[in-house]
This record gives sequence, structure tokens and C-alpha cells, in this order.
Amino acid sequence: MGNRIITISREFGSGGRTIGRMAAEKLGIPCYDQEIIEKITEETGMLKSYVESNVEDVQGGWLSVLAGRDYYGHSLQDDLHAAQTKVIRELAEKGPCVIIGRCADSILEGHADLLKVFIHASMEKRAERIVNQYGETPEDPVQRLKEKDKKRKAYYQLYSDRKWGAIENYHIALDSGALGLERCAEIIVQLF
Amino acid sequence: MGNRIITISREFGSGGRTIGRMAAEKLGIPCYDQEIIEKITEETGMLKSYVESNVEDVQGGWLSVLAGRDYYGHSLQDDLHAAQTKVIRELAEKGPCVIIGRCADSILEGHADLLKVFIHASMEKRAERIVNQYGETPEDPVQRLKEKDKKRKAYYQLYSDRKWGAIENYHIALDSGALGLERCAEIIVQLF
Repeated sequence: MGNRIITISREFGSGGRTIGRMAAEKLGIPCYDQEIIEKITEETGMLKSYVESNVEDVQGGWLSVLAGRDYYGHSLQDDLHAAQTKVIRELAEKGPCVIIGRCADSILEGHADLLKVFIHASMEKRAERIVNQYGETPEDPVQRLKEKDKKRKAYYQLYSDRKWGAIENYHIALDSGALGLERCAEIIVQLF
Repeated sequence: MGNRIITISREFGSGGRTIGRMAAEKLGIPCYDQEIIEKITEETGMLKSYVESNVEDVQGGWLSVLAGRDYYGHSLQDDLHAAQTKVIRELAEKGPCVIIGRCADSILEGHADLLKVFIHASMEKRAERIVNQYGETPEDPVQRLKEKDKKRKAYYQLYSDRKWGAIENYHIALDSGALGLERCAEIIVQLF
């Protein structure tokens, strides 16, 4: 069945990345996040900035996805997803690890012994968090969150046959705003 | 904020009731389930069989809900829900406890310090469980599950302003089929 892998899907601003890192540290296993971007950049020769903004978000909505397809219905984003699939499967073969986002739960289904986690929080808690973490912008934080959720959802649905954030897709879903990051990490460690 | 109360919402056949009982036993607090039916029966003088089959399921779909309403848009099911609300709030005032189903999460919002849990499992695992627990029937188990889910969902949506089984409504959601009942109970105890 392959290695035991923790996949962390998360709403933007829920602290899912931090929780994943905390859990990996406690377990003494690697946590892959930015490394995935770097590996894809190496593999494809695409610009890092392009990879970063397209690796789990659909930019510009469905119309741009369709517009970006060639005569055969194929797009640059599809190449990116193929590289992402390859990189994530290779990382999962190396040994137990935590993988943050990037459709890893769907990409690794049937290829590893998964613990599929979803981290969410109320709009209010997330807005507070992104302002603290990424600073103020002219845009309203709630608007930023809604935009980001929409892009992430669209990407997930484009490349998996599942609905992002649907309860049945995860072994465990945690409200990090109510429970706190530390407790979420502890539960994940315990279930691993 | 009131007492610490664990509410367990669950898909039919997921073992949520058993998990709730296990957690309550470990914590040494009461678990309310059948008692709710009995108290509502006492309060309202309605037939126990009616209370049992209407206290968290909409029977016969939306058309029957509409058909059951009088000139003022009021129905027997509304009286039942009012009694249920009263009974559940009274139980929650007595002290910390576990409450199984019956929209307790929505009924107690703002009235208690809630830990809102959702228990789910794959259709396959649930079908296996209901055949073991309730025996074979002429009806296909998957069909039974789908029917029951539909009724529970409709009830929840009729009497709360939320979507049943939507990830954002719960502090923690657990796949009991993948994790096992014992581990689910342990996590709930730990979070309490």
C-alpha cells in the first residue's frame, strides 16, 4: 500500500500549513510544501512565479481554463499538473511525510497509505490570521479569502473527481479556529 | 456560556451513537439518546412511535411537510420540534453531557459551550454495519442508507439555517470507517 502519508488540505488562512509543519516536526518526518514548487520548476523549466500561482489555484476562472487549451483541449496548466503528480508521487515513495495541499490526497489515492486531513476555520478567524500573517492590503480580507477559496476549489475540481472541502473526502476535518493549531497538530500525530 | 456539551451528528450506520456512548462513558458524563424521545413523549403526549420516526427525519419528503401545515403554516412536526428544543436545552442545563443527533448542535448554539462532532463513513462500511446491526431486509442496504440520509438532511435543513454534513458546521469530523470507533471516541474525549 506504500508509505504512510499525511495530506493536509486547507482553507486559505486556516493555519493548515503551520499545523502540518508542527505535526511533521513532532513525528520527525519531512513536511513538503515549498519543495514541491521548486521540484516542479526544475522538472518543467517553467517560471517559478508561474508554478507558484498555478499549482493549486485556477487563475481567472473557468473561462481562462478553457481559453488556455489548444486544439486538442490541452493546456500549460495540464503540463503543470502532470509534473506535480510526478513530483508528489516520487516524494511519497521516499518515505512517510506530510504534504501540504496541491491535490496530494487525490494524486496519492491508491498509491500510499493516506491520512487525509482537512483544516478549516470561520471566515472571521481566517481574516484575522491573514492580516496578521500577510499584512493589510487595500483589498478587504474577507474578499481575499473568498477569491482564494474559489481558485483552490476550482483547481481541485478540475484535476480530481471530487468536491473540495466535502466532508466524505477526509478522514478527519478540524476547525483550527475553535480548537487551536497546537491541538490540531496533536490529534494528527496521534492518528498517524 | 453554559455547560460543555458534545453534540454528535452522524450519518446513519456510521456508528456515531456508539462512539458518543463510548466517549460519555470514558468521561463519566451522561449520553442522551433514547431519553430525548421519552421526554418529548411525556411533554407532548404524542405517540412514542410518532416521535421516534419524526424527531430527526422528515417522512415522505418536502411535499408531505407542506401538506401537513395548517392555514397558519404550522404543523405537528413543528410542535414536535418545539418540544425537542425545550427538552434538549433543559438537558444541557443540567451539566456536561453527550447528545446524539436531533439537531442538538443547532438547538444549543449560543446556549452551551459546544464541541460539535460529525461522524461519517463510506457507503460500503455503513452498509456492512447496518446489515450486522439491524439485520437483512428485502430492501438493498445502500438504498436504505440513501433514504435515511435524505430524511435526516431534510429535517436538519428544515429546523436549522445550516446544511447537514457541511464541513464548516463542525469542530471535528471523523471517518469512523477508516479510523475505527474506539479511536474516534478517544479523540473526542481528548478534545473535551
